Amino acid sequence: MSRPDNRAPDALRPVKFQRGWTKHPEGSVLVEFGDTRVLCTASVDTGVPRWRRGSGSGWVTAEYSMLPRATNTRGDREAVKGKIGGRTHEISRLIGRALRSCLDLKALGENTITIDCDVLQADGGTRTAAITGSYVALQDAVTWLTDKKMARKPDKILTRSVAAVSVGVVGGTPVLDLNYVEDSSADVDMNVVCTGDGDFVEVQGTGEEAVFDRSTLDALLDLATKGCKELTGAQVRALLT
Amino acid sequence: MSRPDNRAPDALRPVKFQRGWTKHPEGSVLVEFGDTRVLCTASVDTGVPRWRRGSGSGWVTAEYSMLPRATNTRGDREAVKGKIGGRTHEISRLIGRALRSCLDLKALGENTITIDCDVLQADGGTRTAAITGSYVALQDAVTWLTDKKMARKPDKILTRSVAAVSVGVVGGTPVLDLNYVEDSSADVDMNVVCTGDGDFVEVQGTGEEAVFDRSTLDALLDLATKGCKELTGAQVRALLT
Amino acid sequence: MSRPDNRAPDALRPVKFQRGWTKHPEGSVLVEFGDTRVLCTASVDTGVPRWRRGSGSGWVTAEYSMLPRATNTRGDREAVKGKIGGRTHEISRLIGRALRSCLDLKALGENTITIDCDVLQADGGTRTAAITGSYVALQDAVTWLTDKKMARKPDKILTRSVAAVSVGVVGGTPVLDLNYVEDSSADVDMNVVCTGDGDFVEVQGTGEEAVFDRSTLDALLDLATKGCKELTGAQVRALLT
Amino acid sequence: MSRPDNRAPDALRPVKFQRGWTKHPEGSVLVEFGDTRVLCTASVDTGVPRWRRGSGSGWVTAEYSMLPRATNTRGDREAVKGKIGGRTHEISRLIGRALRSCLDLKALGENTITIDCDVLQADGGTRTAAITGSYVALQDAVTWLTDKKMARKPDKILTRSVAAVSVGVVGGTPVLDLNYVEDSSADVDMNVVCTGDGDFVEVQGTGEEAVFDRSTLDALLDLATKGCKELTGAQVRALLT
Amino acid sequence: MSRPDNRAPDALRPVKFQRGWTKHPEGSVLVEFGDTRVLCTASVDTGVPRWRRGSGSGWVTAEYSMLPRATNTRGDREAVKGKIGGRTHEISRLIGRALRSCLDLKALGENTITIDCDVLQADGGTRTAAITGSYVALQDAVTWLTDKKMARKPDKILTRSVAAVSVGVVGGTPVLDLNYVEDSSADVDMNVVCTGDGDFVEVQGTGEEAVFDRSTLDALLDLATKGCKELTGAQVRALLT
Amino acid sequence: MSRPDNRAPDALRPVKFQRGWTKHPEGSVLVEFGDTRVLCTASVDTGVPRWRRGSGSGWVTAEYSMLPRATNTRGDREAVKGKIGGRTHEISRLIGRALRSCLDLKALGENTITIDCDVLQADGGTRTAAITGSYVALQDAVTWLTDKKMARKPDKILTRSVAAVSVGVVGGTPVLDLNYVEDSSADVDMNVVCTGDGDFVEVQGTGEEAVFDRSTLDALLDLATKGCKELTGAQVRALLT
Repeated sequence: MSRPDNRAPDALRPVKFQRGWTKHPEGSVLVEFGDTRVLCTASVDTGVPRWRRGSGSGWVTAEYSMLPRATNTRGDREAVKGKIGGRTHEISRLIGRALRSCLDLKALGENTITIDCDVLQADGGTRTAAITGSYVALQDAVTWLTDKKMARKPDKILTRSVAAVSVGVVGGTPVLDLNYVEDSSADVDMNVVCTGDGDFVEVQGTGEEAVFDRSTLDALLDLATKGCKELTGAQVRALLT
Repeated sequence: MSRPDNRAPDALRPVKFQRGWTKHPEGSVLVEFGDTRVLCTASVDTGVPRWRRGSGSGWVTAEYSMLPRATNTRGDREAVKGKIGGRTHEISRLIGRALRSCLDLKALGENTITIDCDVLQADGGTRTAAITGSYVALQDAVTWLTDKKMARKPDKILTRSVAAVSVGVVGGTPVLDLNYVEDSSADVDMNVVCTGDGDFVEVQGTGEEAVFDRSTLDALLDLATKGCKELTGAQVRALLT
Repeated sequence: MSRPDNRAPDALRPVKFQRGWTKHPEGSVLVEFGDTRVLCTASVDTGVPRWRRGSGSGWVTAEYSMLPRATNTRGDREAVKGKIGGRTHEISRLIGRALRSCLDLKALGENTITIDCDVLQADGGTRTAAITGSYVALQDAVTWLTDKKMARKPDKILTRSVAAVSVGVVGGTPVLDLNYVEDSSADVDMNVVCTGDGDFVEVQGTGEEAVFDRSTLDALLDLATKGCKELTGAQVRALLT
Repeated sequence: MSRPDNRAPDALRPVKFQRGWTKHPEGSVLVEFGDTRVLCTASVDTGVPRWRRGSGSGWVTAEYSMLPRATNTRGDREAVKGKIGGRTHEISRLIGRALRSCLDLKALGENTITIDCDVLQADGGTRTAAITGSYVALQDAVTWLTDKKMARKPDKILTRSVAAVSVGVVGGTPVLDLNYVEDSSADVDMNVVCTGDGDFVEVQGTGEEAVFDRSTLDALLDLATKGCKELTGAQVRALLT
Repeated sequence: MSRPDNRAPDALRPVKFQRGWTKHPEGSVLVEFGDTRVLCTASVDTGVPRWRRGSGSGWVTAEYSMLPRATNTRGDREAVKGKIGGRTHEISRLIGRALRSCLDLKALGENTITIDCDVLQADGGTRTAAITGSYVALQDAVTWLTDKKMARKPDKILTRSVAAVSVGVVGGTPVLDLNYVEDSSADVDMNVVCTGDGDFVEVQGTGEEAVFDRSTLDALLDLATKGCKELTGAQVRALLT
Repeated sequence: MSRPDNRAPDALRPVKFQRGWTKHPEGSVLVEFGDTRVLCTASVDTGVPRWRRGSGSGWVTAEYSMLPRATNTRGDREAVKGKIGGRTHEISRLIGRALRSCLDLKALGENTITIDCDVLQADGGTRTAAITGSYVALQDAVTWLTDKKMARKPDKILTRSVAAVSVGVVGGTPVLDLNYVEDSSADVDMNVVCTGDGDFVEVQGTGEEAVFDRSTLDALLDLATKGCKELTGAQVRALLT
């Protein structure tokens, strides 16, 4: 089997992070996984939502969205339809959980960090690119917070890093980091979020077109672990520059 | 470690299916996993949604909802709020995917089956009870369709069965079929949908409170596979009576 | 004229109340009028809506809803449509008014009781069954409140009981407690709410298909008064067990 | 007991109909019951709603609304809130039913008449003024339809007239056509719709503040019948000029 | 070129103001520009929106709406559609800005004046009639406020008057105060808001059907200035009676 | 007076167009006016909205939106609020009108072009940058349509070009192309859309903080005409490369 872009089954697409891509947010990263391009911003606000006031702890939340023509065919704007679709809700919740797993919310103090992931161009793997890019934006925002002396225990806020990647079975072969063409024809599709230490934060595998057995699941988890490790390396390099 | 109801870590709660619980639907099952009680109905309509017309294939969709006082504290009605929350969307989509994996939509012909899962009483595991009960309601609806000679290839519609169960790590121990108290204190929470043959349809594991390593994941998958096998047996018995 | 189920024109369908049908609510009653089955729950909250704070008085409100497949043909969920229909609003308001007429809101103190009436199976008379069942749930909730010593004057909260029934003219004959088939072909349709003492709380008669004269109205009011009296008896018996 | 405007208990307020008050609608009537002022328009469209197509029958529907400052305190616009309140829904449905009772929808043919009742100034009895004024607008619209030769059986469309009035118990006395001050302090409140022949179309009596016995109900029905008869006379005179 | 109603190109339609047209609002003016009829009310409330509290300054806001059958063809109610259209939003914002330009919000103190402009009959120029009529209602409301001694510096609240008129190019000729027929066939359409002193508050010119050069723009501005001056005179006369 | 970035009063900020910035749309331009950065895409669809079918003419529509953190302070997403604000509506309508003025919709045939303007970074003048960039994207989309031989008269579709710029009075001086700091303190604010030939398409001037006389208006129009002429030159150069 050959992949549309001739990658090896276990190869990521070229990954690129541009920090400070827009000037207003406390963290702003344009992340690219091949042709998938997501603008991830982290916005800091003092205070927390009403239900959390007085707890001494902070909060991190995320919103994911696609520009109408990020995709091959124009999609309707959710603002125009007046409601957010199930897929958008689901991905926003996933990103929020993944990012919260990086932080000690107590150490953050009563501050809120809002992650916005806006897909400018989509070619498969938008949610995993969003998580991976958002972690970099989050770290920039935490640095900003620390510089401003807003946090309770600035050096204890970030407890681990996260990265995410998609894996799937295409034409019978497990492959890493599917692009849109592969994603459309995959029998099994899985998104995996790992910490920089190689532990799992989230595993979401779906076989709508086909069911999958334990050995296939194991092969996919191996691929995803390898991919996340490489993405962690790329995050570290981006944060050093 | 002892569980709140003294079950063994790998034991299900008592499971009960009442078929024909309401008189109007083509399939109507009240399923109970301990104190969790979900009314699963399957409604048959001729025709399919607009985007599928002329395809010769059918469609299966699902909607999940909780009565306001199914839970310990009354929740606001989504109809009153005027929008469906992210959690509801996510679970409805999960149930729909799981049930569609049981069917050959071509054999169904241009008919639609709508699954409604209304949680009458919640005590943890409502989404897995909903999937497990809905499969039974779905089979009753397919029988009804077949009796009415509405389908294209009635004996080929159902291709496999599905059942679902939750697993999680509570107090350091992997346990099967968490009730509400356990779910609230779990470090890792996973929902697994299996076919009657033991393959995976969906695996969703989350570690918001704690990350998890590969061996923990393996232990949870083993438990879930065992639980789904027992639930499959209970479905078979319910359908025989 | 014979009725579909061979009842006498002035006969109720079999009535059944199951108290404590679900475990979480302060009052929870599954009421059945023949095949009509409504789950009525009463939820107690400390505090009152904003516009009532500081008044020293409590509040009672009600929400009515039908499960999508409670009826012969599946109806769309109002939560999915994003708005509540006129019929639902109207019935919710009727139930709220009827239940508030039973109480001294001053004696209740600044507590709120929310009545939820979810129709699990519909066969005519869902709003009258909802009112009749909710009164029983309300009384259980008041007992709970009293046991918790939350109310100002616990023994003065309930000032009267209410029950409700439908009457109508079918095929020229006034009949009591119409089922769905009768309701669909009725020329005149009336819902009457009475107190246990036989006074009227609410009278709503409509003749969309036919107008009605004073003597017909008198005959319908006689039937309704008789029906409510019998329902009051059934409520008393249910509350004794 | 004396009434705020010194009327006899069984006296209507001054009633006034201005036909053709706006120039665009097929029927346009500004109706006044004392200081209550409602603009009732009847708009004719060829065709019927989707669910009625091919039936050969027409349709009549109504929408009721209040200008924000029709009342003493400004109310929020429902368009701004993004949803229609329960009271508005309920009154719109009542007006629609009342007006449909005047017509043979078969004779109307597949045409739709939409009644709009916009309250310009409110002083009690807005729904009964709306019904009474709308009947006059409806008759003008039917005349227009007949002149245009659009209907199937133009001379058979209108089968009866309707008028409506409120009655209530204020300070222990049954009174006719309550203004806002009386309405606010009424123990029992009833709206009655009668045909020109004195039959009932709709009877809606509510005793939220107090329950009422059969003799009170009888007294209120007598008053309402008298009031509707006088309003019918006023309609006839307005239509002659 | 002759105009549909034989006016000179620089002539206004007959203008009429009826103050106190409804009894509840602090200012209530029915304004007519020919057959265009708008009810403008000004409602006074103590307090300001949340974002302005503690500023010591007041606020003025406006809402514009059309009755469904104000126009030749019935339009859907925005309350029924559940959202406000772009045109309504745009006009409401224009009216608000224009009216705020008349006032010293500091002198008003923390009070809010809400302007409601409800078009009862439309024949072109509804937004300009609304602004011109609302100024008269606003002045009545300010007088009311002053009489109640609610404002901080009552005699300094109103700093100037405003009036508005439409101009356009119809059949090649610049004309003043277009009615609906002219508006529908205009190549260029402009709305101008002027102060009583002849300065501009707002200039909005659009050439969707045709572009326009500087000399045409100049001619239109001359016409509009003349029209606003005459309208200012009419406002002054109305306020004297 | 000196400007924040030391520009002359009649100088534009640096302007930059990047064509083909995203790969999916038929036209895709990232336009920059200084730090204001807007992604303008033009999407082609066969067919037209329902109300235009059978007319033989095409349609052009526009939607404007801001990413939540395009601005200094994060704004709420309109999709999350469930409704589009007045400002967004107003700007979308302005862009649509401006772009439609460039085209012969008959020559386009029954095709629709949807313009999406998503503000990635805001620093004043977002609507004028959006119009100016969208014209370039529109021309690319028309070229695409022509290459596909989809249009009726491909060489007659574009009849003129448009560009837009803001002007205002800041500190008493009329200035061109205001950035955010200047815009916030402007007494008068005007947006002007011109054709490549120097005619006006749209003139929108507002003086909420101060009114303005005719000579100020003339000075602003002169500045805007000059600015649009320079922007037209930049568009021509961008389209040549």
